[in-house]
Amino acid sequence: MMNKKFNVSTPSGFPEFCPKREKVRQQWIKVISETYASHGFQPIYTPLVERDENLVGKGGNPKEIYALRRLQATDEDKSHSGNALRFDHTVPLALYVARHLNDISFPFRRQAIGPVFRGERAQKGRYRQFDQCDIDVIGSENLSFFHDAEMVAIITKIFTKLNIGEFVIRINNRKILTGFFADLGISADKIKPVLDIVDDLEKLPPAKIMENFAEQGLTNDQTNKILEFTNVTGEPTEILNYLKGINGGEDFTTGVQELETVLTGIKALKVPAQNFIVDLKIARGLDYYTGTVYETKLVGHESLGSICSGGRYNDLAKIFTKKNLPGVGISIGLTRLLGQLFDAGIIQADTASPSHILVVPQDEKLVPNAIELSQQIRDILGLSVETYLDKKKFVKKLDYADKLGIPFVAIIGEREIENNSFVLKNMTTGEQNTHSIENIESIMGELIVF
Amino acid sequence: MMNKKFNVSTPSGFPEFCPKREKVRQQWIKVISETYASHGFQPIYTPLVERDENLVGKGGNPKEIYALRRLQATDEDKSHSGNALRFDHTVPLALYVARHLNDISFPFRRQAIGPVFRGERAQKGRYRQFDQCDIDVIGSENLSFFHDAEMVAIITKIFTKLNIGEFVIRINNRKILTGFFADLGISADKIKPVLDIVDDLEKLPPAKIMENFAEQGLTNDQTNKILEFTNVTGEPTEILNYLKGINGGEDFTTGVQELETVLTGIKALKVPAQNFIVDLKIARGLDYYTGTVYETKLVGHESLGSICSGGRYNDLAKIFTKKNLPGVGISIGLTRLLGQLFDAGIIQADTASPSHILVVPQDEKLVPNAIELSQQIRDILGLSVETYLDKKKFVKKLDYADKLGIPFVAIIGEREIENNSFVLKNMTTGEQNTHSIENIESIMGELIVF
Repeated sequence: MMNKKFNVSTPSGFPEFCPKREKVRQQWIKVISETYASHGFQPIYTPLVERDENLVGKGGNPKEIYALRRLQATDEDKSHSGNALRFDHTVPLALYVARHLNDISFPFRRQAIGPVFRGERAQKGRYRQFDQCDIDVIGSENLSFFHDAEMVAIITKIFTKLNIGEFVIRINNRKILTGFFADLGISADKIKPVLDIVDDLEKLPPAKIMENFAEQGLTNDQTNKILEFTNVTGEPTEILNYLKGINGGEDFTTGVQELETVLTGIKALKVPAQNFIVDLKIARGLDYYTGTVYETKLVGHESLGSICSGGRYNDLAKIFTKKNLPGVGISIGLTRLLGQLFDAGIIQADTASPSHILVVPQDEKLVPNAIELSQQIRDILGLSVETYLDKKKFVKKLDYADKLGIPFVAIIGEREIENNSFVLKNMTTGEQNTHSIENIESIMGELIVF
Repeated sequence: MMNKKFNVSTPSGFPEFCPKREKVRQQWIKVISETYASHGFQPIYTPLVERDENLVGKGGNPKEIYALRRLQATDEDKSHSGNALRFDHTVPLALYVARHLNDISFPFRRQAIGPVFRGERAQKGRYRQFDQCDIDVIGSENLSFFHDAEMVAIITKIFTKLNIGEFVIRINNRKILTGFFADLGISADKIKPVLDIVDDLEKLPPAKIMENFAEQGLTNDQTNKILEFTNVTGEPTEILNYLKGINGGEDFTTGVQELETVLTGIKALKVPAQNFIVDLKIARGLDYYTGTVYETKLVGHESLGSICSGGRYNDLAKIFTKKNLPGVGISIGLTRLLGQLFDAGIIQADTASPSHILVVPQDEKLVPNAIELSQQIRDILGLSVETYLDKKKFVKKLDYADKLGIPFVAIIGEREIENNSFVLKNMTTGEQNTHSIENIESIMGELIVF
């Protein structure tokens, strides 16, 4: 029988990472997760699969949700099984909180890092499976705006540690915008469309923006006042003072008070001044947000879009519980961000292997000695060590270390066995030195160089 | 409009972990992943979704594979989309290797930790989504049996670090069994059924075993010789010598040689004698394995079944490439194992929060001071610190720390602010001491106790 020809490529929109890039991805997850934990965010593990009615009920688009059914369905589940893949971490959080309402101590700080799925048209930078790294704080009935300040400190720590260059977190408050619009006499039904136009200010040409305002029936005066307002720049405290000087309505005033609390918190958290600004243009598209909103951009790479965003919302789980659960959260779109940073050459992936040292026997019969030495280096020095176990020419073994980016090779031959020693070769410089096995700690001095 | 009543429980067979247990799960993944890395196993990230024809082609059961389709399908994908969720890490590995055949340096050592999906009937301990933690070494054309020895050392390190009690890895080689059967005159078509009966030796009552042997047409003499052979016990080297004394055919002899290499490697790796035995009863159900096979049991909890198993196979990617790719691998069924260990009380989950300290202001207007102190403790001492930011009664704040298992609370009130100090309270002992903020390192002495 002829072998069927299989298409072994990854399905469109489903990413893979080779070892070099996967090492970076895992390192990033470690930094993100540990920083979240350093502010007390507890991990929870929610299933990747939820009831489809809950996903749709909480705002999912049925055209983008992947439902599950068995490939060869049995009679009882010929249609679909009622389950579907999660499209974000927020619906699973809402369901978790609804399930455990009586056991949770509020404010509930949770982190979630893992894959979500969206049946979008796959294109460059748009994935159908991608990792999101989220934190949220959920309050019971109310939640201090100091939590919103902490988000800014956390974003700052993460991107500082990840060392990808200068970044700026842009902060605003939805109530300031919507309150300002209402005070201009813009009717309630136009507030959301006008917010969407503001959200596009940096994406669309000015003529198109003017057209969009006009389409909503705004007067020139209203349009000009909005443009003037959203273009205000200055130090955060200057903008706060400017806002305090405006005699706005209740919503506007509440928004300004919330922003003031956030800025007080940011100051106490000692976030460096270059990492955040107040930007009255920031609206965020989602209906979802009701107070603070964030966007983060890489300086000099603004075209990448926001690398971390989020905001404050009024109620997490309205449709699942009767309790009022306000929240604030941020999300890092890890897969998309890493893809962009690799493509733009902002980050590089250097080595594939986690090994510090490859132990190479000069001859196949010395493999047991090589194994023994490897285990000693692992146990005594706590290093990652690989042993070359297969029969190959010596040069091929060195080639293997080189290709995987293993920085050191330890070689043992007959002479080394006799002397209870091994040769340590630096694969970058080519330098090599003999060490006695009894004195194995001495190699740390050589390793320290890299 | 009346609110629809939503069922917020997790879909059947899809597990969730609360923060206490999720902390343990993540800690386990860290130990497992780092131990894999300490032997040079590179992580790769393969999609959770593959082409369904590849999954089925490589042996997946279509009744258990979850296919994806959009919940509200558009015209062009009314049927299914041709993609399905992976059911293990081996098919994705085979596809990865087939895709990257020319870039991979063999032997290819890869680790994979993450969820897989099976549409099984959900029942206690059987999940439809569960984490598997796999390593495999794939050779090009051939692969030394010393790799098989390394698996034993790795399993030993992992379960020793996880500290879940005594365990024993049972090692065998399929060729020894099948060669022995062939030498007894059992015909080729009966070898696999007889192997399956041997695999059941510990699961079924003796009468049933005898019946099964008889059903395959085995003579009493053949049956007795198999039972005698599979019941041989002794030190690994004793069993090896016993096997060497048997004048078997080619397959049998090859199997014994392979086992000898494995035992030589295990010795060089200094695996403690109590952690492994040679057990000629071990067959492993899967057709897949062709050489070494492993099973690991917890001493005193044998009913939990094998907590880590695996083996040697002839060819990873036969249907996807023309190249011969022998491999050896092991797998830890993390979700199932953790569930069993929690249920059996072998492991406990103690604290929910990652925080070492909760900083509590006595009064709402001292929140900025509490924030500032928290950030100092984080930055200077590298600890995880949470700040109580919301307006609550003081006792409720302490209650919060208690419920989350946060071991220390740092309290600041008016007097502490004046003195530039704070009170550190040990939540276990109730003891409390005042520390000056300038001298913040002094608290490490108190924290060290836990």
